[in-house]
Amino acid sequence: MAEQLLNERDIEFLLYEFLDTGQLLQRSRYSEHSIEIFNATLQTARTVAEKYFANHNARGDAEEPTFDGEKVHLIEETKQAWDAFADAGFLAARYDFDEGGMQLPEVILRASLATISAANVSSAGYPFLTLGAANLVRSFADEKLKAQFLPPMMDGRFAGTMALTEPDQGSALADIRTSAEPAEDGSYRIHGQKMFISGGDQSMTDNIVHMVLAKIKGAPAGVKGISLFLVPKFLLDENGNPSTRNDVKLSGLLHKMGYRNTTSTVLSFGEGEGAIGYLVGEPHKGLSYMFQMMNEARIGVGVGAAVLGYQGYNHSLQYAKERPQGRLPSNRDPESKQVPIIRHADVRRMLLMQKSYVEGGLALCLYASSLHEDQHTADTEEQRRRAGTLLDLLTPIVKSWPSKYGLKANELAIQVLGGSGYIREYPLEQLYRDNRLNPIHEGTEGIQAIDLLGRKVPAGELAGYRLLQEEIRSTIMRARDNHRLASQAGALEKALQKLDRTTLDLMGQLQRDPDRGLANASLYLDVFGRVAVSWIWLRQALVADAALADSVPEEDENFYRGKLQAARFYIEWELPEIDAQIALLETGNSVPFEMDENWF
Amino acid sequence: MAEQLLNERDIEFLLYEFLDTGQLLQRSRYSEHSIEIFNATLQTARTVAEKYFANHNARGDAEEPTFDGEKVHLIEETKQAWDAFADAGFLAARYDFDEGGMQLPEVILRASLATISAANVSSAGYPFLTLGAANLVRSFADEKLKAQFLPPMMDGRFAGTMALTEPDQGSALADIRTSAEPAEDGSYRIHGQKMFISGGDQSMTDNIVHMVLAKIKGAPAGVKGISLFLVPKFLLDENGNPSTRNDVKLSGLLHKMGYRNTTSTVLSFGEGEGAIGYLVGEPHKGLSYMFQMMNEARIGVGVGAAVLGYQGYNHSLQYAKERPQGRLPSNRDPESKQVPIIRHADVRRMLLMQKSYVEGGLALCLYASSLHEDQHTADTEEQRRRAGTLLDLLTPIVKSWPSKYGLKANELAIQVLGGSGYIREYPLEQLYRDNRLNPIHEGTEGIQAIDLLGRKVPAGELAGYRLLQEEIRSTIMRARDNHRLASQAGALEKALQKLDRTTLDLMGQLQRDPDRGLANASLYLDVFGRVAVSWIWLRQALVADAALADSVPEEDENFYRGKLQAARFYIEWELPEIDAQIALLETGNSVPFEMDENWF
Repeated sequence: MAEQLLNERDIEFLLYEFLDTGQLLQRSRYSEHSIEIFNATLQTARTVAEKYFANHNARGDAEEPTFDGEKVHLIEETKQAWDAFADAGFLAARYDFDEGGMQLPEVILRASLATISAANVSSAGYPFLTLGAANLVRSFADEKLKAQFLPPMMDGRFAGTMALTEPDQGSALADIRTSAEPAEDGSYRIHGQKMFISGGDQSMTDNIVHMVLAKIKGAPAGVKGISLFLVPKFLLDENGNPSTRNDVKLSGLLHKMGYRNTTSTVLSFGEGEGAIGYLVGEPHKGLSYMFQMMNEARIGVGVGAAVLGYQGYNHSLQYAKERPQGRLPSNRDPESKQVPIIRHADVRRMLLMQKSYVEGGLALCLYASSLHEDQHTADTEEQRRRAGTLLDLLTPIVKSWPSKYGLKANELAIQVLGGSGYIREYPLEQLYRDNRLNPIHEGTEGIQAIDLLGRKVPAGELAGYRLLQEEIRSTIMRARDNHRLASQAGALEKALQKLDRTTLDLMGQLQRDPDRGLANASLYLDVFGRVAVSWIWLRQALVADAALADSVPEEDENFYRGKLQAARFYIEWELPEIDAQIALLETGNSVPFEMDENWF
Repeated sequence: MAEQLLNERDIEFLLYEFLDTGQLLQRSRYSEHSIEIFNATLQTARTVAEKYFANHNARGDAEEPTFDGEKVHLIEETKQAWDAFADAGFLAARYDFDEGGMQLPEVILRASLATISAANVSSAGYPFLTLGAANLVRSFADEKLKAQFLPPMMDGRFAGTMALTEPDQGSALADIRTSAEPAEDGSYRIHGQKMFISGGDQSMTDNIVHMVLAKIKGAPAGVKGISLFLVPKFLLDENGNPSTRNDVKLSGLLHKMGYRNTTSTVLSFGEGEGAIGYLVGEPHKGLSYMFQMMNEARIGVGVGAAVLGYQGYNHSLQYAKERPQGRLPSNRDPESKQVPIIRHADVRRMLLMQKSYVEGGLALCLYASSLHEDQHTADTEEQRRRAGTLLDLLTPIVKSWPSKYGLKANELAIQVLGGSGYIREYPLEQLYRDNRLNPIHEGTEGIQAIDLLGRKVPAGELAGYRLLQEEIRSTIMRARDNHRLASQAGALEKALQKLDRTTLDLMGQLQRDPDRGLANASLYLDVFGRVAVSWIWLRQALVADAALADSVPEEDENFYRGKLQAARFYIEWELPEIDAQIALLETGNSVPFEMDENWF
C-alpha cells in the first residue's frame, strides 16, 4: 500500500467500522450530509495532499526557508499548497453553513488533515496553525474583531500563529514576560519577545494574525495574570485591508533538524513604540482560552506523529516485499535464490511493531477526535459531558503516545532498509527527523506526564479515569466471551486492575508529597498509554473478528487478519512491559529523585 | 564536565580503577612503558581531538563532501585533522617499536580514539578505517604487498577502506558478485560495484587502499568462495610511489542523515579492462580474514556510539544545570524564583538514564578492548584463549548495545533541552543524526542478534557463554556480602538464572527449528545486553564502594556516589524489563513469525 499516503482501507475501517461515524448523520447538524459527502471530502484531501503537498516534501526539507533581513523566502510550492488547502475549503470546513463553512464533523476533518500531514507535515503547518488561531478568534474574540479577522482566516487571505513561548521560558508559561499596556483607543501596546513561533513569518499571505499571550501591567503573578491578544503583522485599514506594518519584527529564523519548511521564528513585539494588540475575551483569562484549544492542538500533534510513522511503515513495507536478500536460517544452500527480506522473521517483527504503533496511534487519535465531536454535538447533555471528560483525561496520551511510538516506528523503518534508510536518497530519514519534533512541541512528554498524573487523573475525584475504566471494561466483557479474543481480553483485564491499584496508590503518594509523587510521572504516562492502546487494539480486533464471521473478499480477509495479528502483537509484546514499570511506581522508586546534582 | 569531550575523571576511573590497565606494565611487551606514558598518549589524543577534530564537527556536517564529477571536495580542516592524527603517531601506535609503532596497548589506543570520536566522529572515519585496513594488510598480506602498502598507511600517506557491501546485497555477503580474474603477472582483474564504502574517495591522501571482497572465477558459491584483494586507487611505480590511476571509479556519493563528513561512496571496479587487485592471503579465505578484524571494527562502532551519547549527556547536563525554568510541584508561589531544570525529577531521570547508558556503554567497550589486549598479550596460553573466547561471545553485545542505547541517550539529551535540542543552533541534533548510523553499519542489530544466538552462544558447547557466567558469578559473590550492594547483586543473580534457563531453552528451540528458534533473536540480544551491562555496572559499583571506604576529596566522593547511583538505576530500572522479554522467548512467541506478508 506504499503508493498511498495512508492505507485507504484502514481509514475506511477506522471511520466506519471501528468508529461509527455514519451515526453522526442522525444528528441535526449533519442532516444535510451523507457518507458520500464525507468520502468526497476525504478524496478531496487526498487529491490536495498528493498534488500540492507531497510534491515538495523533500524539496522543502532540502531548501528550507531563508530570511534575507527583510523577507522570508519559501519555495513557491508552499504557497500553491496553501492556496489549494484554502480553495478546497478546509480552513472553514468545520464551521456552520451560515458562517461560510461546510459544517463538517471533526473526525472527518481530522482524517482529511491526516492525509495532508502524511504528505508534507511541514507545509501543512501553516494552514494547521491558522485553523487553531481562527478557532481562538471565533470562540473568544468580540464581534468586531471577529468580523475583521475571521473571514480572511477562513478563506486563506490571512494566516495565524500561536505565540506562547519566550526565550527565557519554554514550558513554564507562568513566567512569560511579554507585557501589554492599555492605550487610549482600547487597544494595547505589546512589548516582548517570542521564540519557536511556527509560521511566525512568511510572505505567502496578505497578513499574519498572531495570537499572543502577554501580561497586562499590574496583572497577578503566574498563570492567573496571562491575557490573550490578537496582534496582526499588518494593521487593517477602515476597509479591513492590511495597511501599515505593525511593530512586530522577525528577529531571526531557527534551523530545525526536520519539519524544515515550517518557519520557526524569534519574533520581537514592540521594539519601537509597541505592537498594537487587541485583547481577546476578558483580561487574565488568556491561558484558560488557550487550554480550551489545547485538546485540538494536541490531537493534531498526535495525528501528525502517527501519520509520519505510517508513511515510514508504508515505505519500509514496500521495500521489504521487493528487496531480495539472504536466505532463511534453515536453508544452507548458497546457490538457492535469495528471499525478499520480509521473509526474515526479524524484519516481520519490525514491520508488525510499526503497524501496531502507527495504526494504533491513528485509531487512538481518531477516537479522540470522535470524543471531541461528541463533546459538541452528541444528543444529550450527559453524553456531551461524558465525551468531554474522557477527552480531557485522554489528551495527554493522545498527544504523547503517538509522538513517542510514531518516532520509534520511523526508527524501525530506517532499520528495515539498513544503509538505504540512513541516506537522503530514500524518504525514511526525513520522516524520522520530522517526527523527532513531536515529543517536544505542544507540551513535552514530561509535561504531558505531569498533566496526566497531577491533573487529569485526579480531576473530579477521578471522574474521567473512572469513565475510561468503564469503557475499557465494557470492551473486555465483549471480548472475553469470544474464544479467539479471550486471552487478550484477560491480559487487558489484568493490566487494568494493576493500573487501577497503581493509580490509587499514586494518589496517596501525591497527597503525602507532591514532588516525590510526581517524580515518576513519565513511567505512569507510558503505562497508561500501553493500557489505553491495548484497549484500542482490542476494540479493533473485535470489529475485525466480527467481520470475518461472514465470508469476505480475500483482500478484506487479509486486512482483518492483519488487524487481529497486530492486536495480538501489541497485547502480547508491548503490554507486559507495564509489570516492571508498575513495580517501580508502586514502590515509589526514588533513585532518580534522590540523585544529587553534584553526583552527575 | 561539558567543557570536556569526555569526563576525564571517568576515563581515569575506567582505565585504572575499573580495569587494571596498570597491570599491563608487567607484561614484557610493555616493559618500556609507564602510566605516565599512557597518560601522555591520552593527553595527546585529547589535544588532537580538541584542536583538529572538534573545530570542524559542525562545519563538516553543514558543508558535506561534494563530488564535481572529477574530484571529491572536503572542507580543508579534514585534511588538517588527518595530518594531526598521523603526526601524533596514532596510525602506527599499536605496532611494535621495531615496526615503527609505539607498542601501545589496545585499551589505551581505544580510549585515545574514543576522545577523537567524541570530537568529530565523521572526520575520525578516515583514520579509523585506515587502521582497520592496515591491520588486514599486516596480518594477511605477503611480505611484498606489506612492504609496499603498510608503511604509507602507517605514516598517513595512504588511507584505507573496507569494500564489502554491494548494491544488490547488504548484510548477505554470501551473494556478492564482484569478480576477480587472475592475470598473468599474478595480480587479478576486479570487476564489480561496491556501495556504502566509507572514505571510498577523497583527495587528502596520496593514495587510497581498498580492501575488497570478491570472488575468483570458479570459486565455490557462498561465503566459502570469497577472497580478499588489495586494490589501490593509484598503482605504484617501482619506487613505491603512486603513479597511474587504477580502474576504480567513483560512481557517486551517497547523502547521509549524519556522519556527513565521512564520504559514503558507490565505487565501480573495472568499468574498463578491470581494476588491478592483489590477492591478500589465500584464495577463498577473505571472509575469515575480515572476521578476524571484525571484533576490532565492532568495538570501534560501540565506542563511537557510546561517546556520541556521552557528548549529548555532557551537553544536556550542563544545560540542565544552567537553565532556570519552572518550580517544584510543591511550590505554589508564582513569585518565587525559578529553579534550574536539573531540579525537576523528570530531568534528573533523563540525565541518570543517559549516564547509565553512556558510561555503561563506554565501560563495556573498554572492557572488551582489554579482552582484545589479553587475547594477544596475556601471560599464559590459557588466559589468552579465555580472553579471546569471552570477546568473541561479547562482540555482538559490544557492537549493538551502545549503538541502541547511545542513540537513546541522544534522544533523551534532545528532550532535556526541549525546543533547543531540536535546532541546529545547539549540538544535540547532530549527535542524534550521527549516532543513528551505528545500529546499522558493521552488521545491523538483527545481524548481531543472529550472530549471538545462532553462533556465539552455542560455539564450543557454550564455552564463551559459560565463561561469562563464571565472570558474572564471581562479581555477584563479591557484591552480595556487601550490604550496600547486596540487593543489586541479588537482582543480577536472579536475572542470570533466568538468562541461563532461557538460553538452554532456546538452544533446544534452535535444534528443533532454526527458523523459529532464531525468530526472536533480537529480544534475546536485548536481554543479554541488559544482563551484561548490569554486571558492568555492578563491577563499577564495587570499585566505587571500595574507594569510599577511605576518606576521599569531595569531588571524588561525588564521582563515586554518582557511579553507585547509576548502578542502582540501571539494575533497578532497566534490568527488570527482561522479565517480559524472557516470557516471550521461553514460550517461543510466534506472533511476528506467523504474520503472513499479505496481512500487512
